[in-house]
Amino acid sequence: MDVRAAVAVAAGKPLEVTTVQLEGPRAFEVLVEIKATGICHTDDFTLSGADPEGIFPAILGHEGAGVVVEVGKGVTSLKPGDHVIPLYTPECRECPSCLSRKTNLCTAIRSTQGQGVMPDGTSRFKINGEKVHHYMGCSTFANYTVLPEIALAKVNPAAAFDKICYIGCGVTTGIGAVINTAKVEMGATAIVFGLGGIGLNVIQGLRLAGADMIIGVDINNDKKPWGERFGMTHFVNPLEVGEDLVPYLVNLTKRGADQIGGADYTFDCTGNTKVMRQALEASHRGWGKSVVIGVAGAGQEISTRPFQLVTGRTWMGTAFGGARGRTDVPKIVDWYLDGKIEIDPMITHVMPLEDINKGFELMHSGESIRSVVVY
Amino acid sequence: MDVRAAVAVAAGKPLEVTTVQLEGPRAFEVLVEIKATGICHTDDFTLSGADPEGIFPAILGHEGAGVVVEVGKGVTSLKPGDHVIPLYTPECRECPSCLSRKTNLCTAIRSTQGQGVMPDGTSRFKINGEKVHHYMGCSTFANYTVLPEIALAKVNPAAAFDKICYIGCGVTTGIGAVINTAKVEMGATAIVFGLGGIGLNVIQGLRLAGADMIIGVDINNDKKPWGERFGMTHFVNPLEVGEDLVPYLVNLTKRGADQIGGADYTFDCTGNTKVMRQALEASHRGWGKSVVIGVAGAGQEISTRPFQLVTGRTWMGTAFGGARGRTDVPKIVDWYLDGKIEIDPMITHVMPLEDINKGFELMHSGESIRSVVVY
Repeated sequence: MDVRAAVAVAAGKPLEVTTVQLEGPRAFEVLVEIKATGICHTDDFTLSGADPEGIFPAILGHEGAGVVVEVGKGVTSLKPGDHVIPLYTPECRECPSCLSRKTNLCTAIRSTQGQGVMPDGTSRFKINGEKVHHYMGCSTFANYTVLPEIALAKVNPAAAFDKICYIGCGVTTGIGAVINTAKVEMGATAIVFGLGGIGLNVIQGLRLAGADMIIGVDINNDKKPWGERFGMTHFVNPLEVGEDLVPYLVNLTKRGADQIGGADYTFDCTGNTKVMRQALEASHRGWGKSVVIGVAGAGQEISTRPFQLVTGRTWMGTAFGGARGRTDVPKIVDWYLDGKIEIDPMITHVMPLEDINKGFELMHSGESIRSVVVY
Repeated sequence: MDVRAAVAVAAGKPLEVTTVQLEGPRAFEVLVEIKATGICHTDDFTLSGADPEGIFPAILGHEGAGVVVEVGKGVTSLKPGDHVIPLYTPECRECPSCLSRKTNLCTAIRSTQGQGVMPDGTSRFKINGEKVHHYMGCSTFANYTVLPEIALAKVNPAAAFDKICYIGCGVTTGIGAVINTAKVEMGATAIVFGLGGIGLNVIQGLRLAGADMIIGVDINNDKKPWGERFGMTHFVNPLEVGEDLVPYLVNLTKRGADQIGGADYTFDCTGNTKVMRQALEASHRGWGKSVVIGVAGAGQEISTRPFQLVTGRTWMGTAFGGARGRTDVPKIVDWYLDGKIEIDPMITHVMPLEDINKGFELMHSGESIRSVVVY
């Protein structure tokens, strides 16, 4: 069938909106009509050419929501009409990772997904007979796409596609980092570095978890009202601190009898390796946990003195917020419907597919929190 | 009173065994007759001058066992005749750290301990009227010493001093890293880097925890029988591997359906920052925990790509094995008496105080696992 898609033809070039041929679902695959998709920094990272694993031509996009149109042979958990969110981290419930109960990083289709193809090693997308690659196992920058059954979360049909598409990446990553990875408890202190689309969701995750002190750190003062809107209690602009950031933050987090300071939990949402170090070192001696969420540039490294760890700090990371896609994503959709979390104000821009490159520009200029393409 | 002590007069010089004047216990302090003390790498680290916080002259030693002789005003938990192990990590049970239930790093007397004095800011040791510093709050290289009540674990009097002194540091650090910090579970896979006095105790901690695969890594083949004696199942000499160590270890730990590999838990017991990185990267994608135990040289840093953390590895550290001294050390003494853990074979050399410098030489040459001074 002919579908409309924004194709990444080469690194560094704008997406080309055009007609693409999509083959129907094979066994254990599902054809989904994408109704909306967010534009995420990871799409931009790959499109820019900075991603060493980027493959072209490809149909990018991994933050979508849509409706099942057709299911292939053997598909049992989905049927036409189901509302779904595509999962770049699938959940097969059978591989050693899924069965470990310790990670969400299902490995069932990891190798083919990395190669931009379906689990059987082939692509469903073509232009004039030439293969076009899938991306992160999703390719939501097309109004129809094919995904493995294990890479689709069935969600409550009452929820609006142009909002819950954001749960496909940003919302789940931010909230999940708090709940699944750091396991923040009531009354904790926390620092969030970087108040973009992920950082704001970390902040609302912290509010949800009952944190007492939620410090947002950003070099852009315009982010202050944004942070406050989702639960931030203190804002720090490192450019205005007038001293080294880490001791400033350690001092800010001193409470009551505890005159050591440092946050119980810190989160890097910047991708900057220097900030990742600051986040670790601003966490509390003895029990501070620092979670890396941001994706660093190729080849960049984090460093610290091992004394930071020996004195009780833990350095960890999260992918897709530690969430198991098919199990946890439907719950987050319900939280949205129940008003436990907010999404609407974060969707600052909505556009048709034809204007998708404008969404990337808005991201670059820092004007948008999230741009969403509606089909 | 006059006591016999090995005094560290200056960085890089041998200890001088001489007579020192010791003042009796003040309020909340306890006079202890030290019956035996181990010689640990940390003593050597400070004596060498590499420890940026080293103070001279001082009476080193922090791995002792002895008997309470006299208690100062206000001491309620100890009485003369009690058998005790000095604690360089005290347990006041009142400070925010002790009350956090998240760390063993009691902060009640941290600042004065670091300055080589008792909590009231003065020293109990003098030579000809000149102040001599305490060390790590213990100073077990003297046949009598004074400690705060909160820095003494009361232990079963049936246990031999020249064995359980080792519980004052090495045994607890190694076993505790497994049980308290990493929280290793039955059936796990683990890699231990460095089979010295700490590494062997990590190995017996892993055996105690029920690990299936316990891989020891050391560049000295003489350590192989030592590792095996305490539960090591595989030995790897990096100099004989003939390829990069990390992929070799990852391959070695592949089991059953899990063809990803990497150990569930890894432990650095070397203090070498390059090895710390290898330990992290040899841990399992998704859930590997890597624990830094070794103390690195001043100014040295650990590094890795943040991707290692984002894909589910956790980098952590431990001090005194995460053990709360007064609560956990008596239990470890009981485990020794019950035969759950072994100590005797690790005490390879015993000597009088006069020969203490020989104990340091044996450590440098790698001949000893642990040398113990008996008074």
